Amino acid sequence: MKKKINISIVGGSGYTGIELLRLLSQHPHINIQQITSRGDKGRSVSAVYPSLKGFIKQEFVNPNEADLTNSDIVFFATPNGIAMQYAQDLIKKGVRIIDLAADFRIKNTEVWEKWYGMKHICKDLLKDAVYGLPEMNRNKIKKAQIVANPGCYPTAIQLGLLPLIKNNLIDKSNIIADAKSGISGAGKKFDTNLLMSESAENFKAYAIQGHRHLPEIEENLSIATQDSKIKLTFVPHLLPMIRGIHATIYVDAIADFDISALYQKFYANEPFVDILSQGECPEIKSVRSSNICRISFQKQTNSNKIVILSVIDNLVKGAAGQAIQNMNIMMSCDETAGLKLIPLVP
Amino acid sequence: MKKKINISIVGGSGYTGIELLRLLSQHPHINIQQITSRGDKGRSVSAVYPSLKGFIKQEFVNPNEADLTNSDIVFFATPNGIAMQYAQDLIKKGVRIIDLAADFRIKNTEVWEKWYGMKHICKDLLKDAVYGLPEMNRNKIKKAQIVANPGCYPTAIQLGLLPLIKNNLIDKSNIIADAKSGISGAGKKFDTNLLMSESAENFKAYAIQGHRHLPEIEENLSIATQDSKIKLTFVPHLLPMIRGIHATIYVDAIADFDISALYQKFYANEPFVDILSQGECPEIKSVRSSNICRISFQKQTNSNKIVILSVIDNLVKGAAGQAIQNMNIMMSCDETAGLKLIPLVP
Amino acid sequence: MKKKINISIVGGSGYTGIELLRLLSQHPHINIQQITSRGDKGRSVSAVYPSLKGFIKQEFVNPNEADLTNSDIVFFATPNGIAMQYAQDLIKKGVRIIDLAADFRIKNTEVWEKWYGMKHICKDLLKDAVYGLPEMNRNKIKKAQIVANPGCYPTAIQLGLLPLIKNNLIDKSNIIADAKSGISGAGKKFDTNLLMSESAENFKAYAIQGHRHLPEIEENLSIATQDSKIKLTFVPHLLPMIRGIHATIYVDAIADFDISALYQKFYANEPFVDILSQGECPEIKSVRSSNICRISFQKQTNSNKIVILSVIDNLVKGAAGQAIQNMNIMMSCDETAGLKLIPLVP
Amino acid sequence: MKKKINISIVGGSGYTGIELLRLLSQHPHINIQQITSRGDKGRSVSAVYPSLKGFIKQEFVNPNEADLTNSDIVFFATPNGIAMQYAQDLIKKGVRIIDLAADFRIKNTEVWEKWYGMKHICKDLLKDAVYGLPEMNRNKIKKAQIVANPGCYPTAIQLGLLPLIKNNLIDKSNIIADAKSGISGAGKKFDTNLLMSESAENFKAYAIQGHRHLPEIEENLSIATQDSKIKLTFVPHLLPMIRGIHATIYVDAIADFDISALYQKFYANEPFVDILSQGECPEIKSVRSSNICRISFQKQTNSNKIVILSVIDNLVKGAAGQAIQNMNIMMSCDETAGLKLIPLVP
Repeated sequence: MKKKINISIVGGSGYTGIELLRLLSQHPHINIQQITSRGDKGRSVSAVYPSLKGFIKQEFVNPNEADLTNSDIVFFATPNGIAMQYAQDLIKKGVRIIDLAADFRIKNTEVWEKWYGMKHICKDLLKDAVYGLPEMNRNKIKKAQIVANPGCYPTAIQLGLLPLIKNNLIDKSNIIADAKSGISGAGKKFDTNLLMSESAENFKAYAIQGHRHLPEIEENLSIATQDSKIKLTFVPHLLPMIRGIHATIYVDAIADFDISALYQKFYANEPFVDILSQGECPEIKSVRSSNICRISFQKQTNSNKIVILSVIDNLVKGAAGQAIQNMNIMMSCDETAGLKLIPLVP
Repeated sequence: MKKKINISIVGGSGYTGIELLRLLSQHPHINIQQITSRGDKGRSVSAVYPSLKGFIKQEFVNPNEADLTNSDIVFFATPNGIAMQYAQDLIKKGVRIIDLAADFRIKNTEVWEKWYGMKHICKDLLKDAVYGLPEMNRNKIKKAQIVANPGCYPTAIQLGLLPLIKNNLIDKSNIIADAKSGISGAGKKFDTNLLMSESAENFKAYAIQGHRHLPEIEENLSIATQDSKIKLTFVPHLLPMIRGIHATIYVDAIADFDISALYQKFYANEPFVDILSQGECPEIKSVRSSNICRISFQKQTNSNKIVILSVIDNLVKGAAGQAIQNMNIMMSCDETAGLKLIPLVP
Repeated sequence: MKKKINISIVGGSGYTGIELLRLLSQHPHINIQQITSRGDKGRSVSAVYPSLKGFIKQEFVNPNEADLTNSDIVFFATPNGIAMQYAQDLIKKGVRIIDLAADFRIKNTEVWEKWYGMKHICKDLLKDAVYGLPEMNRNKIKKAQIVANPGCYPTAIQLGLLPLIKNNLIDKSNIIADAKSGISGAGKKFDTNLLMSESAENFKAYAIQGHRHLPEIEENLSIATQDSKIKLTFVPHLLPMIRGIHATIYVDAIADFDISALYQKFYANEPFVDILSQGECPEIKSVRSSNICRISFQKQTNSNKIVILSVIDNLVKGAAGQAIQNMNIMMSCDETAGLKLIPLVP
Repeated sequence: MKKKINISIVGGSGYTGIELLRLLSQHPHINIQQITSRGDKGRSVSAVYPSLKGFIKQEFVNPNEADLTNSDIVFFATPNGIAMQYAQDLIKKGVRIIDLAADFRIKNTEVWEKWYGMKHICKDLLKDAVYGLPEMNRNKIKKAQIVANPGCYPTAIQLGLLPLIKNNLIDKSNIIADAKSGISGAGKKFDTNLLMSESAENFKAYAIQGHRHLPEIEENLSIATQDSKIKLTFVPHLLPMIRGIHATIYVDAIADFDISALYQKFYANEPFVDILSQGECPEIKSVRSSNICRISFQKQTNSNKIVILSVIDNLVKGAAGQAIQNMNIMMSCDETAGLKLIPLVP
């Protein structure tokens, strides 16, 4: 029997925190040490989330009073700007970090500071932080001290684009990603736009003047392909449902190739990417509550346009599930441990 | 007091039929003569649709037994291929037709027959049929004997594109329309994909190999602009909600221009098109149950890409409301008669 | 042509306020003078609610700066405890009040203060205030200076019970009302329970230790029937949808009678109550966006138990629509003016 | 390592069938032999349900061609009337049966035939069939050849009532169960009432003239308590959501007792029943996708009325999960094997 992995969660009472707890409770090799929450400190986790009754016995602790230094890994399911406050200390003490927020997703701090509206206080750690998309950076993740867990949109969009970009098969200066997210992506917060009376029976784009996930995608695809010319038009939309992301991506082919063969081969050994036949349309529901990314595509007739469709559960492959996948890689567990989740249908 | 307009509805028991009845009941100048339904014949309309109790007193009649020749206008809220069976006879007797299905939307019968999978039996009437998008063809609609009421997607997409296309400001060979529709667009039929257990908490693209509304848009925009080079990539998606269409359109500008001024001027006199400021995002809910099309746009920084957002209620401006707008134009009523509908919020 | 009725709305930016505006915009005899909102003062109504663009041109004004004394009627769409602060002054100046909150719904101030947790500062006005359920108190409403518009649950429940209670046909000490409300009934406020991520795909009871609408129903049914023995068990539930209330009421018959004949006769002249046949089940959707209350019932076999089903739109017959019905009665308009609303289906 | 249990599923393509597959895939001791489906025979399960891709490799087989006699247990996830056609043969060959439909739920065949509108062809097997509510009949289930898996409503309602009924603390002739179900309870079938356009943003009662689950509850509670006087008023309603049942039960106490202590003690050793504190309200979402029944209650002040609230996931504890719980009991597995499911929140 493997020795247990000791983990702690900072910011455990939001939707990604609670999803980490749902998934880690089912993980065979985990010992949860501390779960912090500023707002719910002192309350038992299962009082705040009755769904976890019988699975998580702990209380939320005040982050100021938590000793995180005995953990193998600390997950930050916090707002942007928190993980970088803890990083130096934890790294010094040999604790590894998985940040589900954006602090370490972008190397270019000038770009980061512009989009996130705050000073980056941890620039020296950035160069060693690894962008935690396993299908892109698995080897680097293994030894990373800090893993920047990707955003939900960037996960769906980059997995859809990687086979084309890596093989230089499309015009990288003219990519369009029309993405749609369930409302849990906006978190659990006081915002009247998120009320059911506002968001049910409704649909809209948002942030069309620019969304933070745009530079994340452009930079990481550029790094992955050592090509600085990647140019994306990205429009996010809000779906009247709870979980899931659907990205519809439009690109222009610059070569002839067998698209099905390309995707099948590229993802042949990936446990969490499922490629459908050309012309099939992946449904969000077919991945809901699982760590799977399901992808399809269609070459247009009489044009070089290709449409790629990519779906994930924003809280799993788009957040907590991917974080655990990263942890499994970092700790040399079976990459699928705790993640053999069957989508909930209907 | 104006003389009442006598109208009949063929196929009154589907969603566009029932929406015609909701709107015509509130119209000041209408006399409803006959409402046919093969499936519900002999039943009172309000027994099938209790929402109409007190507003519609008639029974559904068997279409074979209906005498439509006394009507000024007959609306066809039928499946494709029905209106063309009645058209010759009605036109001969001076009855004008508004077809909410697709029989008269495409002039090129070869294209039509390929996409609709049936013979067109009324080719000689096609050349005089008018495509009923008032903002495009108002003058022709006035005298039309047959009005082809546009599809729901084509309405939202063409209204979003017209100012740019008519003024030759974009690359017409590279237009992308990513469109999302509420589930009522699929009608009231036996299809397990439309069950709430399947479609709630779900989202997917469909028909990515080709959708019938694509040739409709390409042909009618080409006619409107006397330019045969229009090339569209069109991907429809199914929203987990009842009413509404949201089109997100991506185009490449080929000139410099003030986009707000362009749209404001183009639609200045249109009673049912509302232009938002650049960067605002129109919500479906803000037009629900009304005949309004609300449009916004955003020029991308550092590129010539423009994003256009266009929302309608698929059953109103995308079907029954537009049909009544066409009727008002044909009968020289105030174009907004019966259509001053306030969106239902929340 | 009738002289216009001058009205003002205090608290126009919540859901009942905005619904008043939707309905009053369609009313033939209304002049809207002032619409106040503390939070949105200075903004145009249509900027806050784009659905009203083209229908309401005014700005929200600061309630402190509004002169309400020129109005014929002032509607209070405010939280509880506000209308009573304005009432003395307005009444003195001859302005009549319709309060959509609870300040004047209960005559017994001891009971009121216990349930609402505040002092009643306007006790002397209470005895002349009229409980604004037209089907119960139409004649008193005509001359009322203050109309207490009923709560949404009490409207559905009392309309379901009145024929039985008034005719002394049931055991008044053993009435059960199991009621379900759409989430708009909770208003537009910062409460994470109302987020779509929490309330969609969910259902629960609430306030099972006691809900404020219980004493409202017990007192007003007692007054209406001059019987102090009415005893209700009332459990409200939250539906994963926006609009509508469904009350399922269980009573014990103490006499033999023809229940269909009873209800049909009792509501024969009521423009907004529709009685279905025994055994039919009214749907919320069949009254959505309209002022109709639709009622059915079923006598159980082998027992004296009767089940009564009653549905309304909580924002219309349960709030703004009923307020306008009351205004029409107070101002001697046609009671249905501005309220001939067809339910929105689908 | 335990020897695998061989099971087959008849009728695997409906919602309870697919839920059996989701749960059995996660069960440590199961070998799935055959999955039949008349409609989908010859198709791979994962082609029909992409959510099961990677988890179930089999094809649906024609029920006529399936050899079920090698199974330890056969699950019938079929319409009513099918299991009784197979039962004699299977029992003779030592195969045990768990019927998720109604064929063996009611001992009184006269009552059964009246409510189900067909002849019962297997009356001799009825007396040995065991009603599979573990909390009521665990010991009998262990040795049962045929287990009649309870209906979804009866599960929620009986678990709510058992502590009171068994201890003779309430008036058994005056029980009201107001129950609400997600739409998946109606199955995957061609019924326009189940379309999202009809059922979203809607709520209604149904079957108020009588529902088949009424005699099931009355008979089984009577057997459990050896009391034939149990009389229930049962009204089911349809919720605009996919999964879950909420039963609100009203009873009259005939004794003084500590209700919290009663429920806590009664269910102290039950792995799947969770008792909340008096006054708390269980949410459907807190049990969604799990096998848990969560119960609360509230004694009314100034009356002997008690309100009991009981929630389950209709497809898990109300169907497939309970069937597996029964299988675990029959096969002497840990009763919770494969059923330690964490509810999906949000």
